[in-house]
Amino acid sequence: MADLVTLGEAMLRLSPPCFQRLEQANSFDVTVGGSEMNIAVAAERMGLSSAFVTAVPDGPLGRMIVNKTREHGVDTSFIITKKNTRAGVYYLEFGAKPRASLVVYDRADSAIAATGPGELPWAAAFAEARHFHTGGITPGLSDRAAQVTMEGLRAAKAAGLSTSFDLNFRARLWTEEQSQKVIEPMCPFIDVLITTEEDTSRVFKIKGKDYEDVARQLVAKFGFKVVAITLRENPRVWLNDWSAMALAGGKVYQAAKYEVEIVDRVGAGDSFSAGFLVGYLESGDLQKAVDFGTALSALKHSIPGDLNWSTRSEVEKLISGGGGLRISR
Amino acid sequence: MADLVTLGEAMLRLSPPCFQRLEQANSFDVTVGGSEMNIAVAAERMGLSSAFVTAVPDGPLGRMIVNKTREHGVDTSFIITKKNTRAGVYYLEFGAKPRASLVVYDRADSAIAATGPGELPWAAAFAEARHFHTGGITPGLSDRAAQVTMEGLRAAKAAGLSTSFDLNFRARLWTEEQSQKVIEPMCPFIDVLITTEEDTSRVFKIKGKDYEDVARQLVAKFGFKVVAITLRENPRVWLNDWSAMALAGGKVYQAAKYEVEIVDRVGAGDSFSAGFLVGYLESGDLQKAVDFGTALSALKHSIPGDLNWSTRSEVEKLISGGGGLRISR
Amino acid sequence: MADLVTLGEAMLRLSPPCFQRLEQANSFDVTVGGSEMNIAVAAERMGLSSAFVTAVPDGPLGRMIVNKTREHGVDTSFIITKKNTRAGVYYLEFGAKPRASLVVYDRADSAIAATGPGELPWAAAFAEARHFHTGGITPGLSDRAAQVTMEGLRAAKAAGLSTSFDLNFRARLWTEEQSQKVIEPMCPFIDVLITTEEDTSRVFKIKGKDYEDVARQLVAKFGFKVVAITLRENPRVWLNDWSAMALAGGKVYQAAKYEVEIVDRVGAGDSFSAGFLVGYLESGDLQKAVDFGTALSALKHSIPGDLNWSTRSEVEKLISGGGGLRISR
Amino acid sequence: MADLVTLGEAMLRLSPPCFQRLEQANSFDVTVGGSEMNIAVAAERMGLSSAFVTAVPDGPLGRMIVNKTREHGVDTSFIITKKNTRAGVYYLEFGAKPRASLVVYDRADSAIAATGPGELPWAAAFAEARHFHTGGITPGLSDRAAQVTMEGLRAAKAAGLSTSFDLNFRARLWTEEQSQKVIEPMCPFIDVLITTEEDTSRVFKIKGKDYEDVARQLVAKFGFKVVAITLRENPRVWLNDWSAMALAGGKVYQAAKYEVEIVDRVGAGDSFSAGFLVGYLESGDLQKAVDFGTALSALKHSIPGDLNWSTRSEVEKLISGGGGLRISR
Amino acid sequence: MADLVTLGEAMLRLSPPCFQRLEQANSFDVTVGGSEMNIAVAAERMGLSSAFVTAVPDGPLGRMIVNKTREHGVDTSFIITKKNTRAGVYYLEFGAKPRASLVVYDRADSAIAATGPGELPWAAAFAEARHFHTGGITPGLSDRAAQVTMEGLRAAKAAGLSTSFDLNFRARLWTEEQSQKVIEPMCPFIDVLITTEEDTSRVFKIKGKDYEDVARQLVAKFGFKVVAITLRENPRVWLNDWSAMALAGGKVYQAAKYEVEIVDRVGAGDSFSAGFLVGYLESGDLQKAVDFGTALSALKHSIPGDLNWSTRSEVEKLISGGGGLRISR
Amino acid sequence: MADLVTLGEAMLRLSPPCFQRLEQANSFDVTVGGSEMNIAVAAERMGLSSAFVTAVPDGPLGRMIVNKTREHGVDTSFIITKKNTRAGVYYLEFGAKPRASLVVYDRADSAIAATGPGELPWAAAFAEARHFHTGGITPGLSDRAAQVTMEGLRAAKAAGLSTSFDLNFRARLWTEEQSQKVIEPMCPFIDVLITTEEDTSRVFKIKGKDYEDVARQLVAKFGFKVVAITLRENPRVWLNDWSAMALAGGKVYQAAKYEVEIVDRVGAGDSFSAGFLVGYLESGDLQKAVDFGTALSALKHSIPGDLNWSTRSEVEKLISGGGGLRISR
Repeated sequence: MADLVTLGEAMLRLSPPCFQRLEQANSFDVTVGGSEMNIAVAAERMGLSSAFVTAVPDGPLGRMIVNKTREHGVDTSFIITKKNTRAGVYYLEFGAKPRASLVVYDRADSAIAATGPGELPWAAAFAEARHFHTGGITPGLSDRAAQVTMEGLRAAKAAGLSTSFDLNFRARLWTEEQSQKVIEPMCPFIDVLITTEEDTSRVFKIKGKDYEDVARQLVAKFGFKVVAITLRENPRVWLNDWSAMALAGGKVYQAAKYEVEIVDRVGAGDSFSAGFLVGYLESGDLQKAVDFGTALSALKHSIPGDLNWSTRSEVEKLISGGGGLRISR
Repeated sequence: MADLVTLGEAMLRLSPPCFQRLEQANSFDVTVGGSEMNIAVAAERMGLSSAFVTAVPDGPLGRMIVNKTREHGVDTSFIITKKNTRAGVYYLEFGAKPRASLVVYDRADSAIAATGPGELPWAAAFAEARHFHTGGITPGLSDRAAQVTMEGLRAAKAAGLSTSFDLNFRARLWTEEQSQKVIEPMCPFIDVLITTEEDTSRVFKIKGKDYEDVARQLVAKFGFKVVAITLRENPRVWLNDWSAMALAGGKVYQAAKYEVEIVDRVGAGDSFSAGFLVGYLESGDLQKAVDFGTALSALKHSIPGDLNWSTRSEVEKLISGGGGLRISR
Repeated sequence: MADLVTLGEAMLRLSPPCFQRLEQANSFDVTVGGSEMNIAVAAERMGLSSAFVTAVPDGPLGRMIVNKTREHGVDTSFIITKKNTRAGVYYLEFGAKPRASLVVYDRADSAIAATGPGELPWAAAFAEARHFHTGGITPGLSDRAAQVTMEGLRAAKAAGLSTSFDLNFRARLWTEEQSQKVIEPMCPFIDVLITTEEDTSRVFKIKGKDYEDVARQLVAKFGFKVVAITLRENPRVWLNDWSAMALAGGKVYQAAKYEVEIVDRVGAGDSFSAGFLVGYLESGDLQKAVDFGTALSALKHSIPGDLNWSTRSEVEKLISGGGGLRISR
Repeated sequence: MADLVTLGEAMLRLSPPCFQRLEQANSFDVTVGGSEMNIAVAAERMGLSSAFVTAVPDGPLGRMIVNKTREHGVDTSFIITKKNTRAGVYYLEFGAKPRASLVVYDRADSAIAATGPGELPWAAAFAEARHFHTGGITPGLSDRAAQVTMEGLRAAKAAGLSTSFDLNFRARLWTEEQSQKVIEPMCPFIDVLITTEEDTSRVFKIKGKDYEDVARQLVAKFGFKVVAITLRENPRVWLNDWSAMALAGGKVYQAAKYEVEIVDRVGAGDSFSAGFLVGYLESGDLQKAVDFGTALSALKHSIPGDLNWSTRSEVEKLISGGGGLRISR
Repeated sequence: MADLVTLGEAMLRLSPPCFQRLEQANSFDVTVGGSEMNIAVAAERMGLSSAFVTAVPDGPLGRMIVNKTREHGVDTSFIITKKNTRAGVYYLEFGAKPRASLVVYDRADSAIAATGPGELPWAAAFAEARHFHTGGITPGLSDRAAQVTMEGLRAAKAAGLSTSFDLNFRARLWTEEQSQKVIEPMCPFIDVLITTEEDTSRVFKIKGKDYEDVARQLVAKFGFKVVAITLRENPRVWLNDWSAMALAGGKVYQAAKYEVEIVDRVGAGDSFSAGFLVGYLESGDLQKAVDFGTALSALKHSIPGDLNWSTRSEVEKLISGGGGLRISR
Repeated sequence: MADLVTLGEAMLRLSPPCFQRLEQANSFDVTVGGSEMNIAVAAERMGLSSAFVTAVPDGPLGRMIVNKTREHGVDTSFIITKKNTRAGVYYLEFGAKPRASLVVYDRADSAIAATGPGELPWAAAFAEARHFHTGGITPGLSDRAAQVTMEGLRAAKAAGLSTSFDLNFRARLWTEEQSQKVIEPMCPFIDVLITTEEDTSRVFKIKGKDYEDVARQLVAKFGFKVVAITLRENPRVWLNDWSAMALAGGKVYQAAKYEVEIVDRVGAGDSFSAGFLVGYLESGDLQKAVDFGTALSALKHSIPGDLNWSTRSEVEKLISGGGGLRISR
């Protein structure tokens, strides 16, 4: 009965505290995250009923992944448990200029990577649902996961749902060529493409004179109804400018630009997707969608962990300009 | 035998580490603080003998509040213990742009809020004392606490002390209208008003074309001997400009402006009050007072917790420009 | 659609790490717990679908309480949010012989204490439910909460549910006399009474020559269908013996006695209640109920926090004697 | 104006958490302690006004030592600050059977070790005081410190105070022969000797057939008015039996024996001294003294850090047998 | 140039602090360990020059494994780096009676599991070496690793080294039948077998009327020169009895039995192996070997992490009975 | 067999977490560091075989210092253990503008300060070595340490090694005059001088119109083959600009300037020395040396602790401009 259904992998995230490098760690902070889990959680928190579809191993780590999703009210009843698989892990090291933050993936043979077509409960998940979201990480996990991603997109369209896809190219999973070969056939089943200029260039080999041009080429080539592009300027690791735009029906919708002090930028793109979908599915108004997504994701930069623990009223206050940086007391 | 006596509430302060939001906390850092306790501690550390007057519950949390005050040498012998009351608590969440820091108060029915006129040992506290300081938070706690605040001001003036008052409007305690109604009758008993432009506007409805104008209106309306105003510019949560000015005898005293990297800005205003009073009570020189207060409070931004763990020599070094940012070794 | 519905208060639990006393704490571990939340969580984890009915304040602390309940799959849709109330807090200090562990309550005026009759959605919560559980803490919170407890019991019986009640006398909330006066009128609505010999003596003034005798007197006086009594022998703080028995239909059901090394005994009684209800509602077999409850609660002693993070298979393994203390690897 | 004045060294105490060995530490818990500081703090907390006399280096570590003493209300106005000295440090490693706990001293050339006769304000400290306590650690720090200890004892007797001395032999500071040579001349100035059978054997070469015999020999040889001996049986590191006895006027006073679960036994002997002195100075009743000292020190074993954060009511409850090990809630 | 060469896998070890269950963890303590790394480290610390042969992934986690081995002086120059492999991980949950401690392995496809014959530098590692040790975990990792284990044993014997093997059956890696099939062919290459009664029963299906009988059957069937068996009695998780015996030349060598308070028993068996080999290789005296191994491993129970941070003098002191449980200061 | 041999002191470093001041610390992060240990570690990590010569006390703290050096592969076989000495300690407090970071030394009478000529194994250390590095801290520790420093320089030149020296003036160890008197006689034995403009001014009283001028004067006066100067601009504590230059053969080699977000700047100068020596000893190319040193030290600012946990590939990537601040994933 969720409005939004997402498919993807959630992993344990292990990060040394206080800017330690992985090699010098004596402890790891433990959280759970993954692009489409992050989106389901953020959307649910914003008021859009959401479900997350994935596979987890049995045992405590699989339960932890379900728990952390369910904690925010996301429907986890479509998550399957696969015995004799493992929980994907990603190690995250926080940087400071000139040392960029670093991710080490240890996600091969995870439960979702081992899942093949026919195993996930698409019919149940899509019953009464409105929208399906997934992205370019899952098909990069394994051939089986790529087939499952395509299966999900086809099933969503067959069930009458609208769909979105975040390109999310991950060089540590596969090559640009592999990703292009796998993702291009998915495009006919995608209504809303969410991406960055860099990912578009790497996966689709599309470059443009500016963001709008890139978006127009994407629409022209693949026929997406909407293309949304997030824009990050990062002169420092701890201070970025962040914005986004969308193109739909030939028209450009530009969000405000936010200067963000960065506690943890992982999941910021996912927060944009979540916020964009919340705005889009609630109002159909692209300007509202891009505004909501940009504000929600600007806030994400201030929150540790993959998940966005903002509230709807905080996002609305930021959009309305009513925030300010004084302590609220 | 303290030179400075302050009245107010000290609370447990619970804050999640590492920019976590309250909702996601697994642990809280525990400290103790409250505007007038902070002032007594900072003044004592600067060499002005100080006493803090308040009420605490019996039990370990009440003892913790007394301990943390006494640790710095402040006279705690005028603190009363009230059975069957509770320790006020405030939850503090540290933000990053565009997410402001956030305070959640849980201080209703605290020991001091439950204290009424006649319970506090004013005569003993004011014997041989020179100055009494309190502010706009305590009268916002309860009707009884408002009466106690007025009682303290009257008793101080009756005992021949000079007085100061930090307006400190707290929207989470009461409305602007309530605060105006309660505080205006206290003004005749106040020699030194310490405030911000924003608080003046909210409590007294006084706005001006600049800080000096605001200060002049305050003097004109209420007859304060001194008005001191702190000036914060916060383009970011982690980086502010900070200064202050004072108006007395028609003359403006302007402090230097400090750029501050912010570890914890809570209590910065209190440090200004403490430093200002130290300078003022030691020398009677308003320029020294405003310089000392501004430097002491600039340093506060770098120190975690409500309290200012600076030393006198550090403040003097900063005022003299001899600091520098190299590591001292 | 839950089989088990519980009513009670969940609080923030703040405990200093590493056996520190509250007065010396610099940090608190933060968890959430409360007798009937603990029971709903443990029962849900054992496979009995459960719902927790309570009231929480709006804001991050209220959300945290809901989150931590929902994390385990408990139905939280009947929890109401009450504005302008507070989250109950309890401070917990861990002891070592001869210093007993210590609880400091700060739960006056909490959301549930402020809730009165007519506010909770009994009809919805009890639709399709089988059993209602509450206990002697909630009616001790406030007159309103006592009325709400009675209202819940009446509504449950009216809806055809069976009921259980854990006597759970809390001397820091009320006197023995007050509790007797409030709880005795609830007894006609209670099918299963869960208690200790000490609580029975304090609330009902019933003492017996042994546990069985106490149970028989309880049945004789109040007509309970089942009385279950947990039995703790605590020669040390870190090492106890733990068992339980039940009386029903004149027959005594005695569980095995477990020696337990104690990490955190808070919530052990709740785990007994949960396990007992799981066994009872699944099988109707009192021996199974008392065995399951005792094993589940024996395991609780080894787990930090109020909640019981055991799995069904662990409980069954312990009952079957197949556990052993070697590391499983 | 303190009743009790103590002389000794307080050090930073650095201990790795969670039973780590020093060599493997990544962090140290930081507290402050030292035998006679511990005694002053415990006595003050029990209601006996106390002062601690010592020397500290200038700078933050010296201030920390003063702060942590003052936090409990102990009079610190007789502590002198010595420039160009250092704060003594002791590293403490917690063991588990068969690995005993371990102390590494790094206290050479500390502020108090560098202090000589004539530097400490004996006259002021002893004005209106009743009792002076010191012990066998300070004279082992340096020749100067030994002279200061003798100076203190002489001054105390001259000022009409009663005196006590804890033998406290420390093999890591000096040899048995050195300690005997230095301490025996102090004995004429000592009224109450507090010791263990082992220390008596090492320093005075006195052995007896039992504790009473040892005490009688001590009285016979040195003429102490009172000898108190603490008795520890440690079959394990985490579980000991603990008791004490005193001999005075030819009569033996035996305290109850407590089984103690051990969080941190450092400072237990000091808590005995403090409790004994509180009982003795309040009532002159040796049985009360030995009972109070033993109960206070039994509680110490459960508290992390050198200091005893118990309250008077807890001690009295334990003596009266009213404690029990149930959670108080 | 090491006397002792060991082969095996070292993993990241991730364990929640303070007896938390894995499912409830917010942080993991991070250490590195693995049976044969643990042995090389302990032996090196006892004075026997040691080398550890393994494979690690490139990247920070592989470097961490090498670092933590090298930290203790073990020769790491024979460790190979394998690209595109992963670091094995094991999750460790600490229990309390009746909950046993728990290990979750995530070590499939680790660097050493992916290593095949011909990849490890046996010739260099065995040049000038005296003894080779490995055990039953490595051959359980993969077919390739089993071949590598056999290759190592053959190469060691060919190079004239003596050999030892710890049976170390791990049910989470393979079945009893698989282990028997793989390990029995290795036995002709093994001089010293180290095992427990349980492992012998599971892998070799050998059961006896007592430990000596089991050892005699092992010698009879496989012709081992020495069989050493460790003996654990664990009535509690936190308190065990621990001892060992050896059989050689028809003669039984029995060590003392130690009662151990348990901080972390993982690696205790490895410490026995290390200590046994140190004693055996230094003196050839089996009684010294079994005494040294038992004392070293008794101490291990008190130390967090897989590694044994004891010193030689501590072990010798324990063997000589000179330890005691008083704090050394 | 190391290419690079360094002489100096390594200390325990104790720092309060999260910008706490020393005076308010409840825990210290524990690491090990010291200028020449830092250099040996960084050089070894960059691929230059290195040895560190020093003295440590026996016991766990001495072993910790050796361990942490050996962990990175540095040859520790020339470190001597001196009984009855202590480990130097330095307390480090992290600041925020306008509060500079602060170091409190507690290193008097450390093992290396107590070491005199003839104790260190120069012949063995310099066999087959290419280069010797030391600096201006060690001779400031004690007269004996100054003699040892000179002894090392003489021995290095006698053995045909090239030498370098970091001026590293420490005002908390000695006066400018003392340092000049001791260091100037060492200059004839120094090939490469590494310094800052400020240190040159303080020790040698040389000031210039710019960095190049200072370098030229140093060459002119002392005849160094190379002078390298690091350049820090610190408008904030958390954000600096960092660069370096070298003068050799009359030619200036200027490195790029890096803006650095600062996690921990301690050891940045040491990383420059290490990187400079790596580049210089590998290629003889001064531009490569200054580039490598500057990039390596720019990265150091982002890493907590004295040591530089960078990898060679990270440094090369930064020099080539290929880094960027996006998360690598």
